[in-house]
Amino acid sequence: MATLQGKKVSESRTEQIQIVMSGDINGYGRLKGGRLVEWIDIVAAVVARRHAEKEVTTVSIDNLHFKAPAYANETVVLIGCVTYVGNTSIEIKVDTFAENLKGERTMINHAYVVMVAIDENGRPMTVPPLVLEDEEQRIEWEAGEKRRDFIKRRRLEDF
Amino acid sequence: MATLQGKKVSESRTEQIQIVMSGDINGYGRLKGGRLVEWIDIVAAVVARRHAEKEVTTVSIDNLHFKAPAYANETVVLIGCVTYVGNTSIEIKVDTFAENLKGERTMINHAYVVMVAIDENGRPMTVPPLVLEDEEQRIEWEAGEKRRDFIKRRRLEDF
Amino acid sequence: MATLQGKKVSESRTEQIQIVMSGDINGYGRLKGGRLVEWIDIVAAVVARRHAEKEVTTVSIDNLHFKAPAYANETVVLIGCVTYVGNTSIEIKVDTFAENLKGERTMINHAYVVMVAIDENGRPMTVPPLVLEDEEQRIEWEAGEKRRDFIKRRRLEDF
Amino acid sequence: MATLQGKKVSESRTEQIQIVMSGDINGYGRLKGGRLVEWIDIVAAVVARRHAEKEVTTVSIDNLHFKAPAYANETVVLIGCVTYVGNTSIEIKVDTFAENLKGERTMINHAYVVMVAIDENGRPMTVPPLVLEDEEQRIEWEAGEKRRDFIKRRRLEDF
Amino acid sequence: MATLQGKKVSESRTEQIQIVMSGDINGYGRLKGGRLVEWIDIVAAVVARRHAEKEVTTVSIDNLHFKAPAYANETVVLIGCVTYVGNTSIEIKVDTFAENLKGERTMINHAYVVMVAIDENGRPMTVPPLVLEDEEQRIEWEAGEKRRDFIKRRRLEDF
Amino acid sequence: MATLQGKKVSESRTEQIQIVMSGDINGYGRLKGGRLVEWIDIVAAVVARRHAEKEVTTVSIDNLHFKAPAYANETVVLIGCVTYVGNTSIEIKVDTFAENLKGERTMINHAYVVMVAIDENGRPMTVPPLVLEDEEQRIEWEAGEKRRDFIKRRRLEDF
Repeated sequence: MATLQGKKVSESRTEQIQIVMSGDINGYGRLKGGRLVEWIDIVAAVVARRHAEKEVTTVSIDNLHFKAPAYANETVVLIGCVTYVGNTSIEIKVDTFAENLKGERTMINHAYVVMVAIDENGRPMTVPPLVLEDEEQRIEWEAGEKRRDFIKRRRLEDF
Repeated sequence: MATLQGKKVSESRTEQIQIVMSGDINGYGRLKGGRLVEWIDIVAAVVARRHAEKEVTTVSIDNLHFKAPAYANETVVLIGCVTYVGNTSIEIKVDTFAENLKGERTMINHAYVVMVAIDENGRPMTVPPLVLEDEEQRIEWEAGEKRRDFIKRRRLEDF
Repeated sequence: MATLQGKKVSESRTEQIQIVMSGDINGYGRLKGGRLVEWIDIVAAVVARRHAEKEVTTVSIDNLHFKAPAYANETVVLIGCVTYVGNTSIEIKVDTFAENLKGERTMINHAYVVMVAIDENGRPMTVPPLVLEDEEQRIEWEAGEKRRDFIKRRRLEDF
Repeated sequence: MATLQGKKVSESRTEQIQIVMSGDINGYGRLKGGRLVEWIDIVAAVVARRHAEKEVTTVSIDNLHFKAPAYANETVVLIGCVTYVGNTSIEIKVDTFAENLKGERTMINHAYVVMVAIDENGRPMTVPPLVLEDEEQRIEWEAGEKRRDFIKRRRLEDF
Repeated sequence: MATLQGKKVSESRTEQIQIVMSGDINGYGRLKGGRLVEWIDIVAAVVARRHAEKEVTTVSIDNLHFKAPAYANETVVLIGCVTYVGNTSIEIKVDTFAENLKGERTMINHAYVVMVAIDENGRPMTVPPLVLEDEEQRIEWEAGEKRRDFIKRRRLEDF
Repeated sequence: MATLQGKKVSESRTEQIQIVMSGDINGYGRLKGGRLVEWIDIVAAVVARRHAEKEVTTVSIDNLHFKAPAYANETVVLIGCVTYVGNTSIEIKVDTFAENLKGERTMINHAYVVMVAIDENGRPMTVPPLVLEDEEQRIEWEAGEKRRDFIKRRRLEDF
């Protein structure tokens, strides 16, 4: 099987904006966690499709730490980038910000999503390698390796 | 009152992606018009907020011609840009595309949304002028003037 | 092919009521544009089905001018009528009102939707002619011709 | 306190249409019971508001027998009429039909909803008497009395 | 055909919790009747599946008396139990409570849902008999018989 | 300040059931990750409210590994238990299963949610200690300590 040609981080980078509506908030007037994950999941899937040029499915969503709430009527910006690539899996970092009217952004969430490329029968398919272009991307890649190792250790030690 | 400083089209350009889910389709398996307009309305509002740095409200949505359908599981890309600016109003063009796994885009819709900047009491506020930077933006501006004239004529002739 | 028998405006007139719920409003407490279009699209489709006695699909939604907002808990009334009929297309006017407890109605929106009748393969089908019965219907028909001509001119001049 | 002037059934009669969308169906492809009740509840509330000219709240929904299912893409018609009026309560019959492309209707459901008129503090308010105009309305009124008696007996015997 | 083995009430008892979100309330800030019925319908269907070990469909929902409202952010608890079993039908009582932070529960609603077990072609199938274990269950069963008789009488007398 | 009395795991254990509806699935016919997280978040919040007897807010959702998909019409069971308690925070494990008609359950997901008890101004409040009653609960507590240590290490090493 021929090796797939590498792709750059910028080739699959994906941005999404939302405005928090009445149906998106919980009883405290804050953006619901489930709605935020719905948005994160879509951004990650589009990044993965753009990198793999194949259908993808979600394997895991990690590190959903809600640093700050978002409120009704706020602009929410989500930015997704590939951070790490395995044989059939793609790790995507999705950063979520609240953006005020001055254009200033506050970090709300910082999630890692692992997607796997699949064929029409749901079987995993090889994905293109990631071409790293700068120091920031290399740091993210190494952190991605740490996260992968940690997940393995966690599975072994079962915690 | 001091004149507001002009802003470029690129300063408020906004992109959104969606994946068409089961709850987004009608009985023919096609993306619902209402759901598409929901997405268009959000993109236009974010463009207008970014241009005006003020809260905004929708005045009109024009030219919703559905050139092609979008189906369940397709990636939909929406791109919004300011095309014309009045005293208190901002016209935004929102282009909607279906994007396949090769990254090829098919135009679905091409809408014009007029937003007005408002203060906390809902009264219209002056918005920054638009700094046009290239020929394409100037052509869009002239078309925006035509659309404005047409809307006035239409109101007079009542059709 | 035999000519289809004409149908009157009253034979397909359709009315819908809604109450604005919490999930229908945006961050300003006003009815979301996208939700309103969802309702308009359904009313127009039922009018078109009743006129054509065939399945229909939305071609365009035009002239969405939001004259007044609707708020949570208000009764919203939508009334749809055929205004103009082409060979395979049907133009429907959908008026939207807010209705207060005295039964008084305030115009919110005044939209024109073009639907096309389709067979099971999505191919356009001929629709019955419209039988005009009074002066108001004839005025609407002429305005419908103006709108059709305008759309053609707009497509040529590309604005 | 002056007696309120009576109102006719026709003065508050309300009609609603819906098209069953993908988000409205359960795992068998049939209209979800909860969605149907959402529509019935809205129709009944509008009928009660139109009769009482006051805000209303739902007391009970009775006799939800699903005679036939509705499927995705079908036109659903709901018709609500006042059938019985107490001192502060209004009973509304809401009939639900599936309408095919020939305009033929199949009964899906036949529900009775009791609403109470309330002031801004949620306290019950007197509603106008019902002016019965024909035999059908008188038969419905008598059945309404039976239903009221039955509800009382049921509360006593606790079944 | 062999008789199916009886099942106890406890074998199919089902509990559900919800938190009332912004999208679940009406214009008065109260839980929407339709949303509550959506939840009741799901609880009843799971109870019926657990009793019958077959697919089920809703025949009727009865006695929806809203004794008290539920408000945004409240915990809602639904508990469903089989109360009566016919040849192919299962009656389920679904009690709905609002639960405050002290764990105290207020009854909101007390509904009876009738489900029928069906095969893959939608034809009714025999369900296991109900094994009654205590006095409370026997009282519910007798009330279930009363409800069934009442429904028959109601159908005959048509009210 | 007086020490709060300890509470057992069983005192806040919470169960929820759902049926996967058409609006809950993605374009592959599988339960959407975002919808599942919405359900997990609600279960975790109810567990935390029942343990703390206070309002709570979500801090993080961890370890969302989708072991198996759930499909339309399947019964989904979520079970939430307190696993670890800090000064103001509560860790809840939420297990999600698909349940077939025989009552057999397949593990779909195994998530850990951290909630913090808050007063009406959103400030953290002390929560009751957890009374461990058996070996399984002690093993979960130790794993909870590992997860807390890991999160700290992860924050320091920034991966």
